Amino acid sequence: MKILIQRQSLVQAIQHVQKAVSGKTTIPVLTGIKIVATKEGLSLTATDLEIGIETRLPTHIEEDQIVQVIEEGAIVLSAKFLSDIVRKLPSQQVEIEVKQNYLTIIRGGKSEYNLHGLDHEEFPRLPQVSGNQVFSVQSDLLKDMIRQTSFAVSNEEIRPVLTGVMFSLRKGSLKFVATDSHRLATREAAVEASEDLEIHNVIIPGKSLNELGRLLSDDSSLVDLVVADNQVLVQMDKTQFYTRLIDGQYPDISRIIPSNFKTGLTVKTKELQGAVERASLIAKEHENNLVRLNIKIGGIEISSNSPDVGKVSESIEDVSVTGDELLIAFNSKFMLDALRVIDSEDLLIEFTGSMSPFLVKIPDNPNCLHLILPVRIY
Amino acid sequence: MKILIQRQSLVQAIQHVQKAVSGKTTIPVLTGIKIVATKEGLSLTATDLEIGIETRLPTHIEEDQIVQVIEEGAIVLSAKFLSDIVRKLPSQQVEIEVKQNYLTIIRGGKSEYNLHGLDHEEFPRLPQVSGNQVFSVQSDLLKDMIRQTSFAVSNEEIRPVLTGVMFSLRKGSLKFVATDSHRLATREAAVEASEDLEIHNVIIPGKSLNELGRLLSDDSSLVDLVVADNQVLVQMDKTQFYTRLIDGQYPDISRIIPSNFKTGLTVKTKELQGAVERASLIAKEHENNLVRLNIKIGGIEISSNSPDVGKVSESIEDVSVTGDELLIAFNSKFMLDALRVIDSEDLLIEFTGSMSPFLVKIPDNPNCLHLILPVRIY
Repeated sequence: MKILIQRQSLVQAIQHVQKAVSGKTTIPVLTGIKIVATKEGLSLTATDLEIGIETRLPTHIEEDQIVQVIEEGAIVLSAKFLSDIVRKLPSQQVEIEVKQNYLTIIRGGKSEYNLHGLDHEEFPRLPQVSGNQVFSVQSDLLKDMIRQTSFAVSNEEIRPVLTGVMFSLRKGSLKFVATDSHRLATREAAVEASEDLEIHNVIIPGKSLNELGRLLSDDSSLVDLVVADNQVLVQMDKTQFYTRLIDGQYPDISRIIPSNFKTGLTVKTKELQGAVERASLIAKEHENNLVRLNIKIGGIEISSNSPDVGKVSESIEDVSVTGDELLIAFNSKFMLDALRVIDSEDLLIEFTGSMSPFLVKIPDNPNCLHLILPVRIY
Repeated sequence: MKILIQRQSLVQAIQHVQKAVSGKTTIPVLTGIKIVATKEGLSLTATDLEIGIETRLPTHIEEDQIVQVIEEGAIVLSAKFLSDIVRKLPSQQVEIEVKQNYLTIIRGGKSEYNLHGLDHEEFPRLPQVSGNQVFSVQSDLLKDMIRQTSFAVSNEEIRPVLTGVMFSLRKGSLKFVATDSHRLATREAAVEASEDLEIHNVIIPGKSLNELGRLLSDDSSLVDLVVADNQVLVQMDKTQFYTRLIDGQYPDISRIIPSNFKTGLTVKTKELQGAVERASLIAKEHENNLVRLNIKIGGIEISSNSPDVGKVSESIEDVSVTGDELLIAFNSKFMLDALRVIDSEDLLIEFTGSMSPFLVKIPDNPNCLHLILPVRIY
């Protein structure tokens, strides 16, 4: 293998795939990036066996030559050294040449590295994901859906299905659900799928989704999702993202979302967020970050106290309250997580009593829903 | 005590003194900031008994009222909570009122905190530093002198004097020296001092100097230094900085600086720095970050190798070499530390053999000098 490549393009491609490089592994080849050079250009691949990322660099982008493949071939190089070296090289162009015994020469300017590479045949092949369970989503929309749900997954391995985000598709509507059993986040959106395609109970690990979120661009370009038995493939413009799925049956959440309420509160999102953030400064983590909300017809009061620090209270009068007055307490972390991903100016909270889960939603918009369990206070 | 204060001014004052708040301590009052309100305005003080910082806020800055002191008094408040709360308050102005039993009320907008304060009488008094050992330095120059020497102090407590930067003053020339016995950095500059003032062997802890460096502004305003028996006071515009000194006799460095050389190398600073950085990517920390420098009349070669990773070499031809050819090896970290603080375009390195310390200096400028011990290679 022998190639000449624009250094900045190679830096970007390495950054793309590096997120899939295994941090802790006893398999040396997984600490590397596989580089394959063909007539069409270059491909870089990394995987930790949980996720896999492959990105391609064409020989030309419009008039600019990106890669010149002088000799086809493939090699696996340490991701850490490759990344450090390519970033530090002083030249615009980099030459990579593989000699005998996987010895790889990287040249840039007057600098020449001789690195010990690894056999590309030892590198795991990314799965061939295919099937008719295919649909398309706008890149920025998918990114939003991940941001608005993935924070709510469980970090505990006791119930593995809860460490993932469950998605389903029905009548062209894609729905994400995440819960750690203390709070729940859902997000729904119309996507491009055939009317009769139905997908259920696909559980993607929360960590994988966060990595995918970082790869997705902030534009409306279409991204294809292909769902197979235990894999999902996300096909972006020049990059493919694979993740394994979590086995198991996701709990049925439809029964736990209350359909009626006794107290309704409409409030400015940022005003409530600020007040809860200020109250949470006093709240202690080991006491559930407890913050109280006292809802009266004329306004609400947010408060917290900690015997050794002191107490805080703040009132908001610019609210609209319907139904019963109520005193309720919650984990401020769960509330803030939800408030921070709600993009609308106003929000509506529906309570059914101080011991029952409450719903945080956007007025007149059923696509985004957060459910939070209160904390018992005496 | 009762005051009204511009929130942003208070945030800045807290940031200033917070660097002196004790991180680990069993003395509760040291986790706090002492606030004193008088007719003249406000003062904030923090100390970890190693350094102390006091900053003053006048009632007015030009036409703007900064502080309104309604009732004089003093209190100690937890630095962590005070800082978090004042940063998050929604209003431009903050009210602080101390009630009975050190209960302190902080109000901003509709938010009200009740914090348990501590008795200001329990707070250690900063030392009264006075004496006739006083001189003045430009703030930006002092900052430069710290940056160009403090990195070279020792991190090991075996020889406490080496964990500090030693300064001396003679005939209006201030000199900083730091060494960890593997490398040495010195910086000298003319300052405003009476011609007959002589100061010797004042050793300031490296950590204290770094904190001082962060407080110093990047302008040419004058800063006063007052040296006492075991304290130094640095008097800035509105802020006073105290640090204890390290006891002991600093080693005499004049004998270890070679006065003649066998090989002289003149090279562009940035070009050498880039080449050493690239070579150090392959060098291993547990092997002294070893990088080799091969000096020949026509040019130099910088190289490194590691059996399990590979090797690297790079040549620089745009150099001027006088005297003998030489092969020498050094710890690239020490070399890079020196190169990164040298602001001149060219530098001169003087060698007296592959086993002797070499000097890194700025051509025709004796004010800045770095000495580095080589590493033996076989």
